Formats: sequence, structure tokens, C-alpha cells
Amino acid sequence: MSIESAIPPHLTTDRTRTRRIPDDYAPPYPSFVARPAPSVKQVVMAYFGVQGAAEPATFPGPDGPGHVEYARGEDLIATAYWDDPAAFDRWFAAHRAEWLGDAVREPGVGRWVEILRPTVEAHETLFSSLGRPEGVAVLADEFSGPVQEHAYWGGMRDRIPLSQTDPMAAAGGLALEHDGGRVRVRPQHGLCLIRSGQDWADTDGEERELYLRDVEPVLRAGMDYLRDEGSAIGCYSNRYVTVLEDGAPVDRSYGLSWWRSLDALERWAESHPTHVAIFGAAMKYLTTVGPAARVRLYHEVSVATADEQYFEYVDCRPGTGLLAAFE
Amino acid sequence: MSIESAIPPHLTTDRTRTRRIPDDYAPPYPSFVARPAPSVKQVVMAYFGVQGAAEPATFPGPDGPGHVEYARGEDLIATAYWDDPAAFDRWFAAHRAEWLGDAVREPGVGRWVEILRPTVEAHETLFSSLGRPEGVAVLADEFSGPVQEHAYWGGMRDRIPLSQTDPMAAAGGLALEHDGGRVRVRPQHGLCLIRSGQDWADTDGEERELYLRDVEPVLRAGMDYLRDEGSAIGCYSNRYVTVLEDGAPVDRSYGLSWWRSLDALERWAESHPTHVAIFGAAMKYLTTVGPAARVRLYHEVSVATADEQYFEYVDCRPGTGLLAAFE
Repeated sequence: MSIESAIPPHLTTDRTRTRRIPDDYAPPYPSFVARPAPSVKQVVMAYFGVQGAAEPATFPGPDGPGHVEYARGEDLIATAYWDDPAAFDRWFAAHRAEWLGDAVREPGVGRWVEILRPTVEAHETLFSSLGRPEGVAVLADEFSGPVQEHAYWGGMRDRIPLSQTDPMAAAGGLALEHDGGRVRVRPQHGLCLIRSGQDWADTDGEERELYLRDVEPVLRAGMDYLRDEGSAIGCYSNRYVTVLEDGAPVDRSYGLSWWRSLDALERWAESHPTHVAIFGAAMKYLTTVGPAARVRLYHEVSVATADEQYFEYVDCRPGTGLLAAFE
Repeated sequence: MSIESAIPPHLTTDRTRTRRIPDDYAPPYPSFVARPAPSVKQVVMAYFGVQGAAEPATFPGPDGPGHVEYARGEDLIATAYWDDPAAFDRWFAAHRAEWLGDAVREPGVGRWVEILRPTVEAHETLFSSLGRPEGVAVLADEFSGPVQEHAYWGGMRDRIPLSQTDPMAAAGGLALEHDGGRVRVRPQHGLCLIRSGQDWADTDGEERELYLRDVEPVLRAGMDYLRDEGSAIGCYSNRYVTVLEDGAPVDRSYGLSWWRSLDALERWAESHPTHVAIFGAAMKYLTTVGPAARVRLYHEVSVATADEQYFEYVDCRPGTGLLAAFE
């Protein structure tokens, strides 16, 4: 297969900013990106979380999401994806109160939503293998062939079409609006969200042991660091969650992290001891197992303007989600 | 101290290429660069190596180098630095035959020179601390204050003034010219040289043990990899040498590596398991020891056009220096 740019032709523009790699760069192993239909301009990623003994969110039609997933960390999270923001707006106008309204508040239960609607120009995905899309990529038409912009630091930025012309800098900061137990977080220009996942369902024997014994604990330590101490380096919130199918945990997990900026995420990934340790452990694992490695890795990364964000927390524990940025 | 760019004002130009970092980037710890006088346009780094029972090179005046150092790896190496290429040309014309001429050839002795004369636009240095310059930096007038472009992948490139406008891509390849036991290596546009050193003379106790037990062996393994298998990833030659003072080894070492391109060096540094291991070990060491760490680190990196290179090997072992690229 010949190599292609992660940026699709219809989003390719005259550059005012340079990629990190030369035109003849050849990545050492293949990776792939989701290819939404060119008609898709903007996607909606809506995280609906619940705390306490309550049911997870559901998404009845019309105008319901194209894809829904469930996961559990400290909270039970339903994640819904739309590739039509207008449909989402109609849906949310009709159903917001069923999740966040005063009428559904009950003792011991907290509910929240964290919603991002990045344009396709300000968003990228990356998958280590084909055939099992997760997250927003499930909405996509198809996948790319092997792409050029990966396996180097800066590849994430270079895969985002907006990087051709824009530094994607953050500006301003988050702010809180309290109304009793209801808290809204005022958005911030340039906020960045990464969902970074791993799927070890296909592993067995020694490979499975290697992943669970040598990689996962290092990953968990990095996730704990971001959750507990991330605000010092621009990570507003980090959740490390296990994917649920039919309500039961499966061999898939992901980190869901809100960052002040793409930039802050880049800095942690490439130079913080906790991520260098994750990278080193993953590299050792892949070197040991070789090209036959069956762990699947993927991520989705978005940068958003302030009007592409919505955050609301009702009766939630202190430190839930973006509230952690104010602790 | 306020932060300054690694690129001095007199070499700052209108950019056509972007730095990797935003303008408000603040590195997590300080590093410094050598500041040659603005009158210096080009430097000469001349490595004179000898194999077998023979004396190292000497550099009698007039027109002699501004600084000379000695080191031992597989060969005994004298390194001489000039900041006036015309003076070097006069010196080398007068003294080349004393080192490489047929008249001084003797059984069991190999001699070589590897000479690079990068312009200041195509060259950079980085030091973790002030007060003990090594290598080409000894020629410099002074040192900078803390610079902005470091502690991220791509900082090396961003410190080279030419990166403002030029991708510094390699073109063509090296070639051999044999004449019996005398071999010249025809140069290659975009060749890259890095001298990357460490000085643990000031360490003692636990810190010294940490360096020698946990860091040095990992560094050595990476150096061995580059020496033995580097050609597959664009490293033409790697030497890991110990600095000599008055002929005796001291607690300072450096890696001296010739690369096909700056680009190939970047790729190894940021993603090859051997350097990720070095980086991880160094980071663990620095995290353990903290800001009081007394190991000093530095490097100098140059990219050169073909007419800024000269390589000659007389009666040398197979695989000496750049000859390794042809094995």
C-alpha cells in the first residue's frame, strides 16, 4: 500500500506552517486514520456521566446519536457521537432536562455532561490496526491506508488539518458558574480533549501477561498522575475508564483527558517522566512481541473554540471532571 | 533571568518555517548555548585519529587551532577547533602531510581525519550548566542565559538558525575513493554531526553510583547499537569515547556520531528503543537526584554542505569512521 497524508485532500490547504517531517519521511510501522465522509463538517462528542446508584444515560430518537458507548471509571459514563451538530442541538434541547433538570435530581446521585463539537479541521484520529473502530471513528465512512504523519513527536499536531495554518494556541481560562449544586464551567478557547484507548481482547498467553504485568501498571500510574497532579502541567482532568458491553467490563480501556491546550498535551506526552515511562513500556512490549502484537491502540484528539464546548455538573462530587481544575 | 532565543539576534531572519513551540513556551529547567562572537561566520571541527602504537596528532602554530582536546575510544583522537576557516586552510595545507602523507605511513598504524566546517547558521550547542565549556563552545565569547528552545523534541532543529527558512534535508550519498590503503570519502549534502557529552566528575556517593550503575550502561548500549547497527537508520558512524587529560582518562565521555541527516538523528533520538531507554534512564536519574544533580550534559550539532566536509583514512582498519557506512 502506498502512503497517504493523514489530512484528506478536501481539507488540504496552502500551508503557512511547516510539518515536522520531510516529504520523504517513511514511518517505521503502519497506522491509520478514520475518514469521515467529506460532507461531515463537525462532530459532537457528548459524555454523560452519573455518580451514585442510578442508571446510565440513554439516547432515544429522533435525532439520536450515530454511536453510543458505555464505560466505567469513578463514574458510569455514556458517550454519544453525532456527525450532525444540528441534529444534536435538536436532541439535546428535547432531552437535556431528563438528565440535568431539577425534576430528576435525587439524593446521592450526581449527573454531568461534557460536550465538545470540534470541526473536522480541528480533530484527528489514529489507529494501530484496522477492523475494529472505536469512539468517533465508528461514525466514519471508512479508514485510510497507512498514513505518513505518525510515529514521531508532533505527528498528532501534523494530523490535525488546522495545523497547516494555525498554531492552535489556547487563550483565556476556564471559569465556574455556581448555582447551588449545579455548576457550569465556562469554556476556554483552545481546550483540547484526547481519548486514548487500548484493546487487549485479542491477546493471550505470554503477550497478555506482558501487557497486564509490564505495560498496564505503568499506564495506570501515568493516568493517576494526570488525575491527581495534572493541573500543574495543564491537564485539567483525567479519567482512566474501562469499556462496558451489555453493562459488563471488557478488555478495553481508555484515558479521557481534558487539557488546557494541544501544546500542554504534547509537552506531557513527549517529555514528562510518567509518559516517557508509558512510552518506554509500550515500546519494550512491542519490541518483545514484534509485528504480531495483538494489542490494538487508538486515540482521538480535538481542539475546540469556546463556542464548541458545554460543561454542566449537577450535584456532583468535588473534583468531578473539569471541576478538578479549580481544586 | 529572563528567557532568550537560542538563535542570536544577528542570525534571526524572517521565518518561512515554524518552530514547534508556541511563543509563550517555558522550558521546565534551564539550559544554555554558546555565543560565539558575531564576527565568527564558520567554525572548523577537525578530528585527527590514530590506530596502533603511535602518538596523537599535535597542532603547531602558526594558524593553529583555538582549542584542542584528546579522547580515546577504539582510536586515539585529537580534536582541534578553529573559528577562522582561512587560518585552518593555511594550517592544514602546511601540516596535512605530517599526518596523512605517504612519508609518515608505518606498519600497524592507521591515521585519519574527519573535518567539518559548518557555518554558524547550520550549527547549535546546548549545555545543562554553565562554567565548564567543552568542544567548540570553548572558542565562544560567552554563554547565553537560559534559552527557550530546549526540553522538547525538535528543540535541536529549532536552535539551528537555518531552521528558520530551510528543512536541512540531505541529498545524495557518501562515496568511496580508494587508492590502496588510502581512502577518501566523498561528502554528502546535509550530513549531520553530533558530539553529545557527559561529565560526571563532580558527582559522588549515591549520585555517582546512580549514574554509573543505572544511566551509563544504558547509554553504552545505545552507543553500541549505533556503532553496530546504526546504518539501517541513517547513522553512518558512532564512536563512544572517554576524554583524556594529560593522556589519562577523566570522568567525561562523549558520543561522536555522523548521520545521513539531521532528520535521521531526530528520528532515532525521539523514537528508537535504544534512545528512549537512554532518555528514560536519564530522566529517572534526574528525577531521583533533583535540581542538585551534578552530572553536566552538553552537545554540539552541525549540518553541512558537501564542500564543508573532508574525510581521509590512511591504512585504517575496516569500518573506521565513515567507512562503516559501506560495510
